[in-house]
This record gives sequence, structure tokens and C-alpha cells, in this order.
Amino acid sequence: MSEQEEQSFFKKEISRREMLKIAGIGGAGIIIGASALPGVLNALGANPFVDDDPSAENKVNFYGKHQSGIATKDPEHVYFVSLNCTARSKAELKEMFKVWTNQSAELMNGRLVEPYSSNTLMPPADTGEATGLDASHLTLTFGVGPSLFEKKELGLQHMKPKELKDLPHFPKDQLDPDYVGGDISIQACADDPQVAFHAVRNLVRSARGKVTMRWSQTGFNSYEMKGKRKQTPRNLFAFKDGTGNPDVDNVKEMNKHVWVQAGDSKSWLSGGTYMAVRRIQMHLETWDRTALSAQEATFGRHRDSGAPLGKKGEMDDMGLDRVENGSPVIPVNSHVYLAKQVKDRILRRSFSYSDGVDRKTGTFDAGLLFISFQKHPKQFINIQNSFGRVDKLNEYITHRGSALFACFPGVKKGSYLGAELFV
Amino acid sequence: MSEQEEQSFFKKEISRREMLKIAGIGGAGIIIGASALPGVLNALGANPFVDDDPSAENKVNFYGKHQSGIATKDPEHVYFVSLNCTARSKAELKEMFKVWTNQSAELMNGRLVEPYSSNTLMPPADTGEATGLDASHLTLTFGVGPSLFEKKELGLQHMKPKELKDLPHFPKDQLDPDYVGGDISIQACADDPQVAFHAVRNLVRSARGKVTMRWSQTGFNSYEMKGKRKQTPRNLFAFKDGTGNPDVDNVKEMNKHVWVQAGDSKSWLSGGTYMAVRRIQMHLETWDRTALSAQEATFGRHRDSGAPLGKKGEMDDMGLDRVENGSPVIPVNSHVYLAKQVKDRILRRSFSYSDGVDRKTGTFDAGLLFISFQKHPKQFINIQNSFGRVDKLNEYITHRGSALFACFPGVKKGSYLGAELFV
Repeated sequence: MSEQEEQSFFKKEISRREMLKIAGIGGAGIIIGASALPGVLNALGANPFVDDDPSAENKVNFYGKHQSGIATKDPEHVYFVSLNCTARSKAELKEMFKVWTNQSAELMNGRLVEPYSSNTLMPPADTGEATGLDASHLTLTFGVGPSLFEKKELGLQHMKPKELKDLPHFPKDQLDPDYVGGDISIQACADDPQVAFHAVRNLVRSARGKVTMRWSQTGFNSYEMKGKRKQTPRNLFAFKDGTGNPDVDNVKEMNKHVWVQAGDSKSWLSGGTYMAVRRIQMHLETWDRTALSAQEATFGRHRDSGAPLGKKGEMDDMGLDRVENGSPVIPVNSHVYLAKQVKDRILRRSFSYSDGVDRKTGTFDAGLLFISFQKHPKQFINIQNSFGRVDKLNEYITHRGSALFACFPGVKKGSYLGAELFV
Repeated sequence: MSEQEEQSFFKKEISRREMLKIAGIGGAGIIIGASALPGVLNALGANPFVDDDPSAENKVNFYGKHQSGIATKDPEHVYFVSLNCTARSKAELKEMFKVWTNQSAELMNGRLVEPYSSNTLMPPADTGEATGLDASHLTLTFGVGPSLFEKKELGLQHMKPKELKDLPHFPKDQLDPDYVGGDISIQACADDPQVAFHAVRNLVRSARGKVTMRWSQTGFNSYEMKGKRKQTPRNLFAFKDGTGNPDVDNVKEMNKHVWVQAGDSKSWLSGGTYMAVRRIQMHLETWDRTALSAQEATFGRHRDSGAPLGKKGEMDDMGLDRVENGSPVIPVNSHVYLAKQVKDRILRRSFSYSDGVDRKTGTFDAGLLFISFQKHPKQFINIQNSFGRVDKLNEYITHRGSALFACFPGVKKGSYLGAELFV
């Protein structure tokens, strides 16, 4: 085989969809001939075989100016994990991110993280539960938390942006230490929960000794379809969530609100963003005993249409100052009024979660895995402070988890995740 | 409006897909004209408007000889809930199941549980988060546990089948009391997790005072597609789960293994089935350090193809007695060998779950929500006892939850869930 043939043969081999057909020939389900590769790819740092494969089904590109999973539209399932870093040096951490770069590109192409070895006396290189599934629009978004920069052994203290610090305590917070903070974050989104889970599992597995899991949360979004267009999804209070978002297709808006610009922060973060994560329990039983008029006054929007109160269309201008019979149409203690009162905008990209029964109360442990992206944490903080003790929604929700991460810019071909940080 | 026109108008009104279009006219998102209905439908017991609507998109029929969600193929998401019964009389319980009958038929047609009232000073009749979503192949399966029959106030003691009792303690069980038992069960399966959640939430809500939530578990299955045919799904160990199932399209097989026949048990259960539920934690990290050959020897099958060891096709005959070089090809302590050694067959219909991080160990809290249907609990018990302390899979899994329910037969039009039990 020529080198070119070998490379194209490899691409085929490691596609999860193609693999089974080839494996069928051998009968034993193992690919013959790939014995030399596992480990070698990782040691190379940048994987010469991996690229954004235009022929992969339902795929999102890994390489680009920005990381995937931020401006990527309409995510269905998320597996979010917050990690503790146990690496003993910057070199170890850098090596981990190089391996993750290769694996992420493979996974987002719908492939195994590494081709299987023909040696069945070894554990399989890939855990295999996504075998036969395609890329499922998998996106992977990596971030680093403030605590990572406090680890002296990593020598990254001088690289810490001053705005990267734990979110302040907000008035109604009742945080559970089991859902707070983290040194490193991975957000895996996909059309298929098993594909998202598989990605995180394999990334964590390959980083054994360098990270441990701190907390994680799954979530989902369901979309009403209008033709082929997904509509704004509803949260578990049945209200649309994300209506006021910046347009992710509008570069100017995204640069203004979401992407860190040169000079905004430490230079390694240019093209990156800050990710706020909040696990918000929603007290469904209390909500379900509330009159529709009070529900709508709480949000400041109509439930079914998503329109501002007194208006018809979801995208209609809020008209915050409208007065009828001497009263403001949008109540001044409504969620949307308080959010719009400050001028800051954020990119909300949240998910519903349902985690069984709350043992203490016998109610649903369900709610929102709130995720927002913004170029500076203060955008989120200002809005959250505006809610303060005033927001009528406070009666129905409790913030249980909280974390802030700085998400790297995108990866150029030949480079790796966080290259600008680990120089 | 004539009665006929009124009925057809109603059907339109209460479709979740149609609703928004109609609501758009009013602007306020409330349907005008349905004010008289909520509560009335419930009081009627059987809802004259509800039927299996052949025009509903992606729907499964509620009415039939057997309940849905048992022989229904290829479920994607499950929301399973186990309930405590707090009803004070058989009449109360019967009333609850009548309401659930109406609501289930509505939900499985992709509608609201009840039309909205025009009175916005009332809580909405439906919690609304499935608005705009279609039926999503929702199935609802209802069962009753042994403890229900011990409640003297219900007067059902004499109706208890003798085989409906708590599953025995199996050798390697490490049950968590938070995931054991229950008086009543609801299994909601759908293509969309929000549709399944919405169904359970509304059923539990309407039964307030009659049930409380005991425990619940969500789960998912992902399917490799061959053309339009879904393949046997893989569990989180990457092995196919459900290969040896009876053919759900084969009435004879289903009658032999799954559906309770006249004379088999109490007569109210004819056409019903027994549902075994086990929450099985899978120790993924241990598994992932195990050689592929040992993984395959544990199951007795090849991982990728699902074929019996030494064979090519998933559906190939096991050939349990095959010997090569003096050793059995299928190890006698493998999961499949021990399962096939007993003659009993069950209908496995399991789901993977991932519930974040196990606090004690820092490992994934993930595994299998094992569900099986069989005409007699002993079929499951015999297989589980065959695993005993011998099954090689025991090293990698821990049974944490357990429950057994008797699932009603299907509902005839005009009748209701459990009618034969509550006579």
C-alpha cells in the first residue's frame, strides 16, 4: 500500500459506521492491521490522519476560529462534566490537551477515539458504545476554571485573567458543594445522549491520573419544528428559553457580546469566551399550582406564544415602558424586565434536566442546567444581580450549582486545545 | 355548532401541534370557548371525545388487547416512576385510574391532558412543556406492586396473585432502599425525553393526594440504523442488549413467554404481564481496564457483531455445547451461558442511564435500567438465580434497585385501566 492508500484505508477503518462492515470479515470483531497505531497517535501530539471529514454524516467541524458547542445551534442533549486537575506539571497538562485534541477531532467525525488493536489481550482503545452511531452533531467545548491557576505545580499563575474568579454569592443562592466549581470543564452536546456520554467517558479515560471527575450533569432540549426550522425550546415551566439571544450567525453581535477580543483579557483567551454554569432546581409542583396569569406575569411573556405580555409574536419588541391603566404592562419584578433593565447581553444555551425524585421532599428533582456564554463574566453577574431578591421567579427556583470557566479559542489545524495558554 | 362539529372542533383544539396556531389568533395564548370542560372530562370517567386518532403524527395506540410499551419496539427514552399509594379507598383508586385512562389516551395522541380553560386565574390544566411537540411514539405502561394489596383500606387483599411478591434477595444484591419497591408504576417511553417527562408529571399531578413519588429513573437507547431498521441497541459495556428476545410480532411466542393467559394467574391479569425492574450500576472504569478477550468471555459473545463466540452473526445459534481444544467455546461462567442454561425466556426492554458522578468513588454513576416482561416472575427469578455467584459479569456490575409489578391488560374502548381489578 502507498502512504496515500494507507491513510485512506485508515479513515475507513476508524469510522464507527464503516467499522462493523470491515469487522464482519474477520468475524471476531477486531480490525487486523492497526496494531502499530494506538499510543503512537497520542505521542505524536497532532494526529496527521485527523481532519474535518466532509463526508462524515451529521458532523460539526472541530477545527475553526472558535470552539464548537457555543455558536452551534439547537443542541439536543448535553453531558457536562467538571473535573479536578491532578496533573503534576504543565507538560503533563499540555500533553493531555494534545491527546484530547486528537480524540475530539476523531469523535466529532463520528469515529473511534483510536483504532482498535489486533491484540485482544489489551483493553479496547475505544469503549465502543457508540459503535454504529454517526457523529450525531457532537460538539465538544473545553474550559478552565479559576482554581486551575492556583495550582503552583502547573506554573500558570501569571496567565490567570483577573476576571476569571468564582462567581459571587447571589442573594437567593443555596449552593450544594457537590455541584460547585471545577478546574477543567467539558461540555459534550449531541443529537444522541449515548454519543455525548461516549465522548466524555473516553476523554476522561485517556486522561487518567491527570483529572478526576468532580461533578456532572446531563440535560436535554426538545424542539417544536416549523418545516425544518427548530423553534426556541421550552423549559420545564413551559416557557421558551433563549428568545433574546444574540444572533449566532451575526459576527458583529457575537464579537460584541460573546467572543473575547484582543485586549479584552489575557491574550490566550482571544477568540474564546466565558462560560457560566448554574444548576437551577425548578419547583414544578409549586409552579403547577400557580395561575396562568401569575406564571405569565412572572416571566413577563405569554407562555404559549413566547410574546412579550400584550403582544403577539415571540420576537416582538419588549416595549418595557408600556403602561396600561396606570400600570406597567411588563411587571417591574418580572424575570424579563429585570434581565432587560441592564444593558448586558449573554448567549443562553441551557438544557432541562430531570434527576429523579428529591429524597427530602418527594418532589421532582428537575430544572435547568443554565449555561451562558459571554465575553466577560460581569455580563452574567450584572443580570443575576438585577434579579437579586426582586425577581418574581425566585419563588419557584433554587440555584443549587455554580461554576465559571474560560473557554479556549478554536483550534487551528496542526495546533491543539489551549496551545496559547501552555506556551 | 352541532355535536359532531363540536367534537371535531375539540379534537383540533387540544392537539399540541394545532393549539399554537389557534392560540395565535387570540394573542394571549389561551383557547377561548373551552371553559366548561376541565374537570368535566374527568368526572365522566370515560372520555367520550378521546379515541385513537389515526391522523396524529408518530403515535402509538392507547387502546388494545395489551398495554403499550411492552411489545412496542425500539424505545428511545424512558421516564420510569415508582409511586406510593395514599388513596383511602378502592373508589378513590378506581377514580384515579379512570382519569389516567383519559389522560393517557390524550397524551398518546399528542394532545394536552385537558383543554385549557379561558380562566387565566386558574393554573393551566396541562403543564405545557410538550406544547408544539407531537406524540413522539409515547407509550404508557401501568402496573401495581405487591404492597398495594396489603393496604387494608383498599380492600384488594383477595385479588393479589400469589406470585406477585417482592423479588427474592439474589446473592450479589446491594440494594439501596431509595430504589426499591413501589405500590404503582408508570413507564413512559418516547422518542423525546421531554414528552415522556411531561406525561409522568401530568399523571402524577392529577393524582395528587392519591399517590406520592417513591423513586424514578430516566434512561435511553441509541440505535444503529440499517436502512430504516433499528438494530439491537448497545449497553454502556458496548455489548448488544436484547438479542435473544422473543419476537414481539409473533403472537404464539408472546403468549408463551410474556402475556398472562386465562388460568395462569388472577383473572384480572389475563392479557397483562409481570414487569421486573432492576437498577444495575455498571462499573465502567473497571470494565474499561479489561482486555477485549475477557470482556467477550464475560458475555459469551463478540462485542462488535454481537455473535456468539466463534460465530459471525448476531442471530446465529448459540451452540452452547461447542468444544474446542477440550474447552467449551462459550465459557460456562459467561452471562449468556448461564442465561440460556435455564429454559425460561423473558422480554428484555432495558435502557442505559447516566446519573452523574458517584459521590463516594468519583466514578460514573451509570448503568442499566433493566426492565423485563414475563408471564410469571419465576422466569426472571430462575435466570437471575442461574447467574448467582457464578456469572463473570458480577465483577463489573452491582444491582442497586429492584421492584416487581403486575401490569394490567390493555384497555377496551369505553373501559379504563385496571377495570378488571377494581370491579
